[in-house]
Amino acid sequence: MEKPSIPKGTRDFGPAAMGKRQFIFNTIRSVYQKYGFQPLETPTMENLSVLTGKYGDEGDQLLFKILNSGDYLKDVDSAKLEARNSKAITSSISEKGLRYDLTVPFARYVVMNRGEITFPFKRYQIQPVWRADRPQKGRYREFYQCDADVVGTTSLLCEAEIVMMIREVMKGLGVTDFTIKINHRGVLKGIADTIEATGKETALYVAIDKLDKIGKEGVSKELSEAGFAPDKIELLFNILNTTGSNEEKRLALTALFKSESGQKGLSDLKTVFDLLEASGSNQSNLEFDISLARGLSYYTGCIFEVKVNNVAIGSVSGGGRYDNLTASFGDKENLSGVGISFGVDRLYDVLEELQLFPKEIQRSSKVLICFLDTESMRYGLKVLAALRAAGIASELYPDESKLKKQLDYANKKMISFTIVIGEEERKEGKLMLKNMDAGTQEKVSLEEIIKTLST
Amino acid sequence: MEKPSIPKGTRDFGPAAMGKRQFIFNTIRSVYQKYGFQPLETPTMENLSVLTGKYGDEGDQLLFKILNSGDYLKDVDSAKLEARNSKAITSSISEKGLRYDLTVPFARYVVMNRGEITFPFKRYQIQPVWRADRPQKGRYREFYQCDADVVGTTSLLCEAEIVMMIREVMKGLGVTDFTIKINHRGVLKGIADTIEATGKETALYVAIDKLDKIGKEGVSKELSEAGFAPDKIELLFNILNTTGSNEEKRLALTALFKSESGQKGLSDLKTVFDLLEASGSNQSNLEFDISLARGLSYYTGCIFEVKVNNVAIGSVSGGGRYDNLTASFGDKENLSGVGISFGVDRLYDVLEELQLFPKEIQRSSKVLICFLDTESMRYGLKVLAALRAAGIASELYPDESKLKKQLDYANKKMISFTIVIGEEERKEGKLMLKNMDAGTQEKVSLEEIIKTLST
Repeated sequence: MEKPSIPKGTRDFGPAAMGKRQFIFNTIRSVYQKYGFQPLETPTMENLSVLTGKYGDEGDQLLFKILNSGDYLKDVDSAKLEARNSKAITSSISEKGLRYDLTVPFARYVVMNRGEITFPFKRYQIQPVWRADRPQKGRYREFYQCDADVVGTTSLLCEAEIVMMIREVMKGLGVTDFTIKINHRGVLKGIADTIEATGKETALYVAIDKLDKIGKEGVSKELSEAGFAPDKIELLFNILNTTGSNEEKRLALTALFKSESGQKGLSDLKTVFDLLEASGSNQSNLEFDISLARGLSYYTGCIFEVKVNNVAIGSVSGGGRYDNLTASFGDKENLSGVGISFGVDRLYDVLEELQLFPKEIQRSSKVLICFLDTESMRYGLKVLAALRAAGIASELYPDESKLKKQLDYANKKMISFTIVIGEEERKEGKLMLKNMDAGTQEKVSLEEIIKTLST
Repeated sequence: MEKPSIPKGTRDFGPAAMGKRQFIFNTIRSVYQKYGFQPLETPTMENLSVLTGKYGDEGDQLLFKILNSGDYLKDVDSAKLEARNSKAITSSISEKGLRYDLTVPFARYVVMNRGEITFPFKRYQIQPVWRADRPQKGRYREFYQCDADVVGTTSLLCEAEIVMMIREVMKGLGVTDFTIKINHRGVLKGIADTIEATGKETALYVAIDKLDKIGKEGVSKELSEAGFAPDKIELLFNILNTTGSNEEKRLALTALFKSESGQKGLSDLKTVFDLLEASGSNQSNLEFDISLARGLSYYTGCIFEVKVNNVAIGSVSGGGRYDNLTASFGDKENLSGVGISFGVDRLYDVLEELQLFPKEIQRSSKVLICFLDTESMRYGLKVLAALRAAGIASELYPDESKLKKQLDYANKKMISFTIVIGEEERKEGKLMLKNMDAGTQEKVSLEEIIKTLST
């Protein structure tokens, strides 16, 4: 029989990886909750009518589709079947697909439950998503997203709170050297207006978005090919090269921009900076990055991206404000929202590289009780019950094995303490507590052990 | 545009339901961890070669299958395609399926990672599974399982620990009136041997398993049809009617059984009872139920089932010992294990019916800061920062709205406290803290508020 395997681009998470992942999830979840966000979970499968057309043609190709149950070929059009037209047949044999992101299901939920939702609605959602992308290093077909969004208000307080949340998450994870990049779609529009790119905004934003990756030369080339005149490209780079503090950049652009969109973007950013100041936050790790564009055309206001400095890993978080969350479902009400998403896999790699995972999260039980004979095992059961009653994660080795094997088990599972029980210990009523990390041991009472391990 | 919907048999879990579900998950997870179980997560999609044939023919039909990406019809056999033979074509156009339970993926994980696993391996797994079953009340197409298994030891300490874990989970959930039913496959074999049912064991166990549902008459009829003689059926019911304490039943059967299997089952149960006693547990809610059979033929030792008394809901938990977890993957090593699984949806219904969900889990933030003017909003930002720095989940209403609207928001989100800030409060430096449940309010300092809300 062939050795079993898992699908390409998917992963098992064993105990060691799970401990680390839970640390990341718990940190993000507790910050979200502290900021008043409430949990939502949507089904893994969505109707394809909900998913299709929401992510562009490329996205539609990357949806995992579920084969209908039963005799799924029964009503398929004969001509299409004979032509082996996979693409044309899909909608006849598949009605459901796997969640591609958390935003579309969230929008779908809001449309379906509008009457019961209290707005502004602050929801967070931590669930996996699936994309039939070609797997490669750091890109998986199943991965978690950790989203938080507020919808139903245009208040810029939400943007300020997103900056604060990012800081708290980073602090909770132990990451100290990071940059929160902030920009505004209005600022980008202001640039477009200034260099007279009306009608070619998308090409401009897409090119700017690549500045990090392909450099000034690459962007120039791309814009040239898109029909931008050399003097306009030069003007663009003059604007993008604006240096100074956030305030200095803002003032420089305020003097430059003639268009309303551009001025609105700058005044929104000023409000966000002011709100942060009013809440006692500084701007030390917040950078007004004029070249931050973020691909998704659906953002309409502030946009965010978070980079950990001195680590060769892309952004670990991103988000922004959008209008009309529910418009794609034909919803007429203007539901503006703003959201942020953390990439768990990238955060994992960052924490691993910077060795920031706390040691204790990789442990299982705090103590293993070992025994030398059957009677001592029974004695150990009482000790075990007392430890657990005190809330201490603990185990009794289940088999009558040599002590070495029992201690090996503790070592391999990274259990910090062992208690070894033999005839002597039973008679004395004192137990040998061994600190496996320090290699020290002492004979103490059960009460003392509980006191030591409870801290 | 049509209103969007979710697939039949799936559910959204909004904030209120999520709060309750997280309470159940957290309770189970913390007990599992206290008992030394470590987390595992496996991919949502498994190769169909891993899943198929593991759940019987019916199970295979209930697997959700993923349509291959790209031009999936390209290499499909023409004859089968023309014949519209859905069943025969499936394996050509689908390679992956959704996880059907947590046991098969666990076995697959053990086979793939045997070299790195420390045995006995205690793993827990809390993830959704999918079944293309006909949806009906209480039966969903996507639902969570919460499994804990120990593999790599035959020690009956594991069985005793499962009983203790069930008790701790129930206690953690606030359920006091419940029964843990325990039986042993050996006992069932002993009954089969006693009534001379050799070769017809499966029919016998399947019938016994239905005693709860179809009663004595129904079971008799079924056995009759399966070729059991009336005197044997009578003998069977005599055995099943054995009354008394666990110990009395055990002694009665010990005197009756001639077969080795039967005696082995009884002696295993004795050991489990003894270990529970040695650990200071009593048997008050543990019932040796001779008629407990549990459908799955793959159990080989002790079997468990948990019923909440006085609630018309089936079992909320079940499990047992099995041999050869990994045999279906051609693995030759004899990996015995024992496990338990909790049904979250049933526990949810039980806690709802018994009104056992703690009130505080349904809350979001602990306090909402309301404000009467722009300046007060800025003042509120500092208050907000101080509350959150103290770890208190809190929000500032994001929009300049009438106070009534702000308080409505607090009420709807079940936020217990509000702070209202106006000019007076800013000048005095004292804040009005309102207890929304009690309807009381008092003007206090921020420090006092933090003290009150931190408890």
